[in-house]
Amino acid sequence: MDAYKAIISKRDTRSYTEEPISEESLRRVLQAGRMAGSSKNRQPVRFVVVRDKEHMAELARCGDFSEPLGPATAAIAVCVGPEGLDFDGGRASQNVMVAAWNEGLATCPVRIHHEDCGREVLGLPEGWRISMVIAMGHPDPRVPMSLNAKRRPWEEYVRWERWE
Amino acid sequence: MDAYKAIISKRDTRSYTEEPISEESLRRVLQAGRMAGSSKNRQPVRFVVVRDKEHMAELARCGDFSEPLGPATAAIAVCVGPEGLDFDGGRASQNVMVAAWNEGLATCPVRIHHEDCGREVLGLPEGWRISMVIAMGHPDPRVPMSLNAKRRPWEEYVRWERWE
Repeated sequence: MDAYKAIISKRDTRSYTEEPISEESLRRVLQAGRMAGSSKNRQPVRFVVVRDKEHMAELARCGDFSEPLGPATAAIAVCVGPEGLDFDGGRASQNVMVAAWNEGLATCPVRIHHEDCGREVLGLPEGWRISMVIAMGHPDPRVPMSLNAKRRPWEEYVRWERWE
Repeated sequence: MDAYKAIISKRDTRSYTEEPISEESLRRVLQAGRMAGSSKNRQPVRFVVVRDKEHMAELARCGDFSEPLGPATAAIAVCVGPEGLDFDGGRASQNVMVAAWNEGLATCPVRIHHEDCGREVLGLPEGWRISMVIAMGHPDPRVPMSLNAKRRPWEEYVRWERWE
């Protein structure tokens, strides 16, 4: 898919079928995240991929709005180290999600509100935290995507030289 | 350009020519950022685009490593509101940077370490902050891109079910 088209048509989607994700697609998705740049190439991001359903349910219990993890086929925990920013987590996550969409896979970011709970479920070492978990799966065709996701008007979103 | 190819070949690049950015390219780049998803579609991100060279120099003085803003043709300040996370800034920024690369434009994130300084230069309202500034321009062909940007080994970067 064309990059611009993939980027602007990607929608956060919470409903997935049970169809498995191919190893090839998963590898490309993870590679897309791995190639996200970082300041001084410090690479402060790591991924923990969860596919075991029971393990995913454990992880889901660490977030307050983690419903998308129920039907998800895989969850990618985007972890950030001591030198990393959530900005880095966001860069890597967006690469993951656009690359997934390019593979026909839907995704939705899930926040882990109870940090220690999430860190324990994934066994993260000292200093590492979960920036976000990306729920992923083949989109459920019975649930229409919000293709007209409304955005604030262009003039409000984009400003020139100064805020006003 | 294919989405996967655009994502994995994008490199943060600090050297630009003086060739102007077309309005059409700039519009697509900004639209890509605007279409980044956000929790509950809150849209906590705004862009302030700086193209005036003197204004860009003022902004550069608010960051400790802002050299890329010197030769940049445009700077996109990715601003985040009271309800926003730097994660949201990262998502929008990555869309901007991959879409820019798809237009043949190079980019580099620039951090604004002196927050009040940056907020004043852009006239941001209370509660809004600069998550990152994206320096942008046509890549200088005399400066080779680090196409072999080394990444940590796959096994270190991607883990399965638990950290180890």
